[in-house]
Amino acid sequence: MPLYHAPVDDIRFVLHEMLQVEKYSNLAGFADAPRDVIDAVLEEGAKLAERVFAPLNQSGDQEGCRIADGVVTTPNGFREAYRTFCEGGWPSLTADPEYGGQGMPFVLGFALSELWSASNMAFAMYPGLSHGAYEAIRHWGTDAQKQTYLPKLVSGEWTGTMNLTEAHCGTDLGLLRTRAEPQDDGSYKVTGTKIFISAGEHDLAANIIHLVLARIPGGPEGVKGISLFIVPKFLVGADGTLGPRNGVAAGNIEHKMGINGNATCVMNYDGATGFLVGEAHKGLRAMFTMMNAARLGVGIQGISQAEVAYQNAASYAKDRLQGRAITGTKFADKAADPIIVHPDVRRMLLGARAFIEGARAFYLWTGLKIDLAHRDPDPAVREANDDLVALLTPVVKGYLTDKGFDSTVAAQQVFGGHGYIREWGMEQFVRDARIAQIYEGANGIQALDLVGRKLGQNGGRGLMAYLGECEKFVADNQGDATLQPFLDGLATATGQVRDGALWFMQNGLANPDHAGAGSVEYLHLMGLQVLGYMWAQMAKVALDARAAGTATPAHDAKLTVGRFFVARLLPDGAALLAKVQAGADSIMALDAASF
Amino acid sequence: MPLYHAPVDDIRFVLHEMLQVEKYSNLAGFADAPRDVIDAVLEEGAKLAERVFAPLNQSGDQEGCRIADGVVTTPNGFREAYRTFCEGGWPSLTADPEYGGQGMPFVLGFALSELWSASNMAFAMYPGLSHGAYEAIRHWGTDAQKQTYLPKLVSGEWTGTMNLTEAHCGTDLGLLRTRAEPQDDGSYKVTGTKIFISAGEHDLAANIIHLVLARIPGGPEGVKGISLFIVPKFLVGADGTLGPRNGVAAGNIEHKMGINGNATCVMNYDGATGFLVGEAHKGLRAMFTMMNAARLGVGIQGISQAEVAYQNAASYAKDRLQGRAITGTKFADKAADPIIVHPDVRRMLLGARAFIEGARAFYLWTGLKIDLAHRDPDPAVREANDDLVALLTPVVKGYLTDKGFDSTVAAQQVFGGHGYIREWGMEQFVRDARIAQIYEGANGIQALDLVGRKLGQNGGRGLMAYLGECEKFVADNQGDATLQPFLDGLATATGQVRDGALWFMQNGLANPDHAGAGSVEYLHLMGLQVLGYMWAQMAKVALDARAAGTATPAHDAKLTVGRFFVARLLPDGAALLAKVQAGADSIMALDAASF
Repeated sequence: MPLYHAPVDDIRFVLHEMLQVEKYSNLAGFADAPRDVIDAVLEEGAKLAERVFAPLNQSGDQEGCRIADGVVTTPNGFREAYRTFCEGGWPSLTADPEYGGQGMPFVLGFALSELWSASNMAFAMYPGLSHGAYEAIRHWGTDAQKQTYLPKLVSGEWTGTMNLTEAHCGTDLGLLRTRAEPQDDGSYKVTGTKIFISAGEHDLAANIIHLVLARIPGGPEGVKGISLFIVPKFLVGADGTLGPRNGVAAGNIEHKMGINGNATCVMNYDGATGFLVGEAHKGLRAMFTMMNAARLGVGIQGISQAEVAYQNAASYAKDRLQGRAITGTKFADKAADPIIVHPDVRRMLLGARAFIEGARAFYLWTGLKIDLAHRDPDPAVREANDDLVALLTPVVKGYLTDKGFDSTVAAQQVFGGHGYIREWGMEQFVRDARIAQIYEGANGIQALDLVGRKLGQNGGRGLMAYLGECEKFVADNQGDATLQPFLDGLATATGQVRDGALWFMQNGLANPDHAGAGSVEYLHLMGLQVLGYMWAQMAKVALDARAAGTATPAHDAKLTVGRFFVARLLPDGAALLAKVQAGADSIMALDAASF
Repeated sequence: MPLYHAPVDDIRFVLHEMLQVEKYSNLAGFADAPRDVIDAVLEEGAKLAERVFAPLNQSGDQEGCRIADGVVTTPNGFREAYRTFCEGGWPSLTADPEYGGQGMPFVLGFALSELWSASNMAFAMYPGLSHGAYEAIRHWGTDAQKQTYLPKLVSGEWTGTMNLTEAHCGTDLGLLRTRAEPQDDGSYKVTGTKIFISAGEHDLAANIIHLVLARIPGGPEGVKGISLFIVPKFLVGADGTLGPRNGVAAGNIEHKMGINGNATCVMNYDGATGFLVGEAHKGLRAMFTMMNAARLGVGIQGISQAEVAYQNAASYAKDRLQGRAITGTKFADKAADPIIVHPDVRRMLLGARAFIEGARAFYLWTGLKIDLAHRDPDPAVREANDDLVALLTPVVKGYLTDKGFDSTVAAQQVFGGHGYIREWGMEQFVRDARIAQIYEGANGIQALDLVGRKLGQNGGRGLMAYLGECEKFVADNQGDATLQPFLDGLATATGQVRDGALWFMQNGLANPDHAGAGSVEYLHLMGLQVLGYMWAQMAKVALDARAAGTATPAHDAKLTVGRFFVARLLPDGAALLAKVQAGADSIMALDAASF
């Protein structure tokens, strides 16, 4: 069975040394989470991930989910694991105390979600999907709705889902057909079929709260006529007890490439009773509240699979004896040297690791920005952080899942032929990681969101502030020879991000296709640049520790891996910019029929 | 079910217009294959691939192979398909007429092997593996061995396998333990266990001829003490009839990520009767005869999965309605525009297509070089072509499988969520394509073969001749403005390949790890450059057709796709060279224990 060791030390490095979260004790929830509490929570979370979730990952994939007469059975052990998860209070960790939550910092919740996903991505999606439902109801629901649904979602007694996609429409929600007929009592009858509903039906929780996009007849066409509804699996009585089964059922579950332990359902709504969330026809706004939370979570899934795959590949590379180091035998007492002596094996491992550690810093840094955007007393600080989170959400989702997949594939490659055999578990990580590039908005959509919407939002305020921050970091930290390559690399990448944005500005009007033609490369350029910023900050932390005489081998390793990042990953920036600047002409020229 | 349409037109473009194979009618076999014969063979091959093999691809994956008491049952329909294949004379197409072959050009055999792999990769491996066994016996076997085994391998009555890997050794064959004890009658008793044996046991053919690497006791240690043996499943009588079952049996079949229709066997040899092929202890040389043929075949597998995945993605993109073109609605009568209007969808498709068409030209051009290396009357021509094939074999294998996988993943991405669902078939192409990067020498090994052995072979004669050929092409074709970007791109990439080789030469002695540290990037740089050469040649052909007034829409599409290649894929060259020149320091610095 594959191993998994929760990377608590590296998370602690980012939280305590790089982000210094203890500085934010003025924010709600942070005072209750001093360093020792954070560490204790991480240690407990690590135990759960390593001992309860990870052992069910491979069996969950092999067993998959079953459906009979609309009843879904999850793999063996999932029910017990979910109960343990809820009993430990984990679903409520970062939730609002008003609804039974513990109000802990989001950034800590993010760290734990990496642990859940890395140890068992398919399992982690059952509670993971509840987040979106929780956020949508908390932001847009009535007080009665909040009182009815939030405490149970927070406790984990119930789970939530997001019902957007229909067979003929995923990205283009303007086409959706599910209808919601108003009833005299203020409720609606929802009718239609939704597909690809993760955790749409299962046996883990007493009730499932579906958040469903549908059209109220007579509303505007297209996306401006979409509304959001709560459709519970079991109707809920005024006293909170479960009433009769609602008119919604899973019609089937999909057979997929991976995440087989999670039930991906076709959901049939047949006059199901639904309750409007927020305003009629303004469902898209509420949908994005769910979606943005989900997108960040999916980005974390991307790095999580890379992390667990890396750990197994590193362990294999230290064990597997094959060949001799070209610079001379390293282990004369063994039949051969372990393959970790070979530069190309190290290249694959370091490529994954340099990505993972940079990506971990990136998502945690983003998590802290979310806390600041929600909890800082100063509106200007809230706005600035909100800008940044909006700008970088598609980058977290798109870059971390694309590079997470690539890194997982590289880790599989370290195993040679054994990587292709199910028993070793590496191929499951690859199959599971693949979905993260696709769902919650395929990565091409993330790139369009970044280039077409976020770059220019509020006159480019978010982008300019972010690039200014990076340039200030470079300027403020001149003078240390060891840090200099990190600063030079960051300066170059920042300039490339700026040049790319400028190119879009200068050329986008003449041909609107330029944005779409270069959007994915631009997202990758920006992801690379953000990781460059993270690595420069981490290198500075490590050098500060050296200067203070407190450096550990982990600090030295940070610098070593960081140097690999600068030497071997950053050079992609120039090629990415060149592709952006190549524009749309070579892409749009071919006649559609000639494809 | 996914579609597959054999790309006969594009193959004909390469064979007739770019390579002009009819010019080689002085070579054995080529006179029997004029243009109309080649076209007829391709048309018949296309029918077989489209109508017989492709319909079994998805069902073969779902059913997989079964084993009971050492007897392997292949998926439904495979037996009949194999019979049809043999009855059509396909196994003998390029084989030596002395053993019943038709002696047709290799380059034509290569084209057909793309069709077999694209339509059903798992199926195509059953006859595909026979090639290596055939080559090994034909080059190294005794006359009696040739007479006994080759005619049946050529007809397809029997199939062949390659038995190299053991559980503890794949890449490092020096560690292998299987033993071959000499017997009084000149035969050997072979004992040991081999793993990952593709098509090791099945129900398609009357006999299976295993080519097995083993040690004769008392021989040298390491790779210098390895010998190659023929171990037939059924012993063969002097009159060619099948005798008793030999002491070899499949102990198990692997559960894999993909190619589930092919039985990957654990083979147990228990005092099985074996016959030495070639000289004792010189088995590695014979093994490479098998291996080089197999490596080229695996490269073709890489492009084949990209091709079939591309075809389905292109078809989907023209069908699927989602969103509107940003430059204005294209199909006002439809609920939305087909997604082929979106630049990013085109980018994914064109990325795959520019790779595929370049790669197809590359493997066919290499196939022609093999014909020249074997069949040209002039020893100097044979040698020059042999040099080139030796140099480029690892590039065909490594580059076409790495980029083939990436392109298959990109094609899957075009499908959005549907790409992740088994029913659509795209995820199978990804799972099947993945193995090609791993087996017959993982791609890191291909890169070491290129950089550590092939670059400097015969004083770099092959590399220098090849780069000179490219530079001559650039110099000879100046003057056409439409061709110029192709020439400029090729010149730049050729310079990068030269600079990379120079860097290895100048720095390799000081630190031998530099070669391994940059080898995969160098292989990719060379693959990109070769494709640049192919695209420049194809562009010239298309422009010549324009000048002659014979251009078709396909010629115009060639130029359009080629321009995409130059604008959007070639820019990677600079980053690849920068990574090569970054050297080994950042890779070797981290202590093994810190991974």
